[in-house]
Amino acid sequence: MSDMKQDALDYHSDPQPGKLSIEVTTPAETSRHLSLAYSPGVAEPVRAIAANPEDAFKYTIKGNLVAVVSNGSAILGLGNLGSLASKPVMEGKALLFKRFANVDAIDIEVDSSDIQEIVRTVELIAETFGGINLEDIKAPECFEIERQLIEKCNIPIFHDDQHGTAIVTVAGMLNALDIQGKDVAEAKLVCLGAGAAAISCARLLVAAGMKRENIVMLDRKGVIFNGREGVNQYKAEFANDVTRARTLEEAIDGADVFLGLSGPDQLSAEMLKRMADKPIVFACSNPDPEISPELALKTRDDVIMATGRSDYPNQVNNVLGFPFIFRGALDVRATRINEEMKLAAAYAIRDLAKEDVLPEIIEAYGVDDFTYGKEYIIPKPLDPRLLNRVAGAVARAAVETGVARADLPVIYRA
Amino acid sequence: MSDMKQDALDYHSDPQPGKLSIEVTTPAETSRHLSLAYSPGVAEPVRAIAANPEDAFKYTIKGNLVAVVSNGSAILGLGNLGSLASKPVMEGKALLFKRFANVDAIDIEVDSSDIQEIVRTVELIAETFGGINLEDIKAPECFEIERQLIEKCNIPIFHDDQHGTAIVTVAGMLNALDIQGKDVAEAKLVCLGAGAAAISCARLLVAAGMKRENIVMLDRKGVIFNGREGVNQYKAEFANDVTRARTLEEAIDGADVFLGLSGPDQLSAEMLKRMADKPIVFACSNPDPEISPELALKTRDDVIMATGRSDYPNQVNNVLGFPFIFRGALDVRATRINEEMKLAAAYAIRDLAKEDVLPEIIEAYGVDDFTYGKEYIIPKPLDPRLLNRVAGAVARAAVETGVARADLPVIYRA
Repeated sequence: MSDMKQDALDYHSDPQPGKLSIEVTTPAETSRHLSLAYSPGVAEPVRAIAANPEDAFKYTIKGNLVAVVSNGSAILGLGNLGSLASKPVMEGKALLFKRFANVDAIDIEVDSSDIQEIVRTVELIAETFGGINLEDIKAPECFEIERQLIEKCNIPIFHDDQHGTAIVTVAGMLNALDIQGKDVAEAKLVCLGAGAAAISCARLLVAAGMKRENIVMLDRKGVIFNGREGVNQYKAEFANDVTRARTLEEAIDGADVFLGLSGPDQLSAEMLKRMADKPIVFACSNPDPEISPELALKTRDDVIMATGRSDYPNQVNNVLGFPFIFRGALDVRATRINEEMKLAAAYAIRDLAKEDVLPEIIEAYGVDDFTYGKEYIIPKPLDPRLLNRVAGAVARAAVETGVARADLPVIYRA
Repeated sequence: MSDMKQDALDYHSDPQPGKLSIEVTTPAETSRHLSLAYSPGVAEPVRAIAANPEDAFKYTIKGNLVAVVSNGSAILGLGNLGSLASKPVMEGKALLFKRFANVDAIDIEVDSSDIQEIVRTVELIAETFGGINLEDIKAPECFEIERQLIEKCNIPIFHDDQHGTAIVTVAGMLNALDIQGKDVAEAKLVCLGAGAAAISCARLLVAAGMKRENIVMLDRKGVIFNGREGVNQYKAEFANDVTRARTLEEAIDGADVFLGLSGPDQLSAEMLKRMADKPIVFACSNPDPEISPELALKTRDDVIMATGRSDYPNQVNNVLGFPFIFRGALDVRATRINEEMKLAAAYAIRDLAKEDVLPEIIEAYGVDDFTYGKEYIIPKPLDPRLLNRVAGAVARAAVETGVARADLPVIYRA
C-alpha cells in the first residue's frame, strides 16, 4: 500500500475515528446553565418558534446547518458502493464546509436507491437544516430527486456534483476563452460525458453565453443527436441538430473546447491536433484525466489545459464553490439557489483569478508563478478572498432575485 | 416576562443562534491535509468500509454519533407544537449528551405524525449513526415506532421519555423503599398517568421485583381494569384484576407508593393521609407536581418525596441516565439496549446515592446535607462518578447478554 493510502487511513482513524465532532457553544457547567439549555428554560424558544417558525433561525443552529446527503450510488470515481461506504466522503465534505466557510455541516446517509423514498426522507427531515447539499447520487436519479426537493422544501437544495462542478468549470472556462482570445458566444465545445456534471456544465455555459448549437455532447454511445434511440430527457436537452459527427473523432474536428467528464485517456494526441487554434482542454476525469497534461502540452504548445488534479495547474475543484455558495445563501436565508446565484458565483471565481495572488498563497503552494494566464485560470482553494467574493456575490444575487431576505446584516461583501 | 424566560431566550440567541456547532477534529490547513480528508485520499476508507461495513466504526464518527429524533408531538409539558418547535429541546438533549458523556449528538426533526413514515425515515438514515434517541413523540405512537425501529435497525434505539424516565425513577424508588423499610416485592403502587413514561416505569419496576398485581394504574378515566372499554394494548398490560377501586380516591387507600406522571395538583392532602405508613410520593409532573413538597411534608412527616424539579430534593432527572447509557452502549457497539442494560443502569444510579457525596458536588449545589436518606435518594446530575458507574454497568450488561462486542477495550468501569 502506498504511503498516501496508509496516510489516508491513519488520518481517518487517529486520534479518533472520523473527522468531525459536535460541540457545545453555550456555557453548560452549572445547574443554572442546564436549566436554561434544557428544562425548564428551553420551553421559551420552543414557544417562540411555535408562534413564529422564522424564530428557528434565532434560537437554533438551523440557519448555519447544512445536511450533506448521499445514498452512495456514485461515490467519487468509485461508483455505487452503498450509502454507508460513502460516509467518509460526506464527512469530508462537511469538513470542507466548516474549514472554508464556517458552515456547520453533518452527513446524512440515506440507504435507498428509490427516488420517491429518498425525496420523502429528505423532505421530512429538511426543516432541521438551513440547506441540503446532495452528493454522489447517480444520474439520472439525481435530477429528479433535486427537482422534487426544490419544489417541496423552502431551503436551498444543491446537488454539488452538478452545480458546484458547473460553477467552477464555467469560471475557469470563461478565463481560458478570454486568454485564448475566443468569444464564448462563438466557441465550439465538445463535451465528452453526459452525466450529472456534464449536463449541468452545459446548462451553465449556455447561461453564460455559449450557444446551445455550438455544444456537441457525447455519451458512451457517441454523439447525442435528435432522433437517436435510448436518450433520456436530460441528455436530449443537448441533442445536436447541426453536426453530422457521430463519434468523438469526428466531433473534435475544429472544436475550440474539449470538456471531459468521462474517463481516462479518451482524448488522443491525434484528436487534440485536429482541434482549432489555441484550444482549451478541460480533462476532468479523476484521478486519471481524458488526456494527461504532459501529452497534451507535448502535442500542442498553444493549448490551455485544466484537470481535476491538485498536482497540475488549473485544478477544477468544487471546494472553490460550494462552501461559499451555501455561506452566501444561508446569510440571507435564501429559499433556493437559482441560476442567477450560480452565475454570480462563477463570475466571482472567474474575476478573482485576474487579481494579484496573495503572498500567503504563493507560500502555501510553494510556486511563485501564479499570474493570470494559461497556467492560472482558476484561483487556489486556500485563497482567503474566496469567502468574501463568492459568498458576497451569491448573497447579493439571492436578494436581487427576490429569493432571500433583504433586511439582514451584510456579512460578506463581494 | 420573568428573568428566567428572558435569560433562556438570550441563552439561545447569544452569541450565536443555538447551542451546538460541528467542528473538525483532524488537521485541515494544507493542501496535503485536504487531499487526505477528501479527494483523493478519502477513497481508501471508502473502499475499506465497502469491503467491511464494521470499518465505519474505525474511519468515521458513526460509533460516537447519536441522532436525537423527534416529531415534536409531545414536547416537554407543552404538547404537540410540531417538529420545528421541538428543535431547541432536541439541541438541548444533544448538549447534555456531549456535556455529560462526550457523545456527539445531533437533532433530527421529522415532520410527520404517521408511524410508518417516521419509522421508514429513521430506518433509512439510521446507519449514519451509532444510536438513535427518540424524544418527545406522543403515546401510543411512540411504542410502535420504537418497536419497529428496534426490529429493523442494528444500532440502539432508545425512547428516553419511556426508558430514561423509568431507569431514574426505579433507581430512586428502590432507595426510597429501602429507606422506608419496605420490600419491593410487597409494595403497593398507584401510578397516576398511563402514558409512555408511566407504562415504561411500571414495566421496569416489575423487572426490578415489584408484583404486577400490586400496581394500580389510572388514566384520565380512572383505574384501568380488565374489561374497561377504550383501553389500548399498552395500558391493558397493567389492567388490574385485584382491586375494586375505580378512582384515585379509592385506589390510594393503603398504598405504599404514589407515582405521578400526569398533571398538577392531582394528589390531595386527604389522599396522602390515607396512604400506608411511611409512604413514598414521586410527583413527577413538571413544572407543577401532583402535590407540592410543601403540602406533602406539612401533611405527613413520614413521607419520602421526589419531583421532577431541580429546586427540591430528590429530582428525578433523565440526565442521570441517557448520556451514560448511550456511552456504555456505544463503547461496546451494542446493537440494542435491552432490559438487562436498563436495570443495570438503574442499579448503578441507585447504588451511587448510597456513597459519600463528593465535596465538589456539595459546593456546586450549595447544600451540605447530601447523605443517603429521605432527602437524598438519587445522585446529583453533576456527580462525575455517574460516567464510570452507569456507562460501565451498561457496557458490562450488554456484553454479558450477548448484544455487544466483548473484545473492545474497556473504557469505563462500574
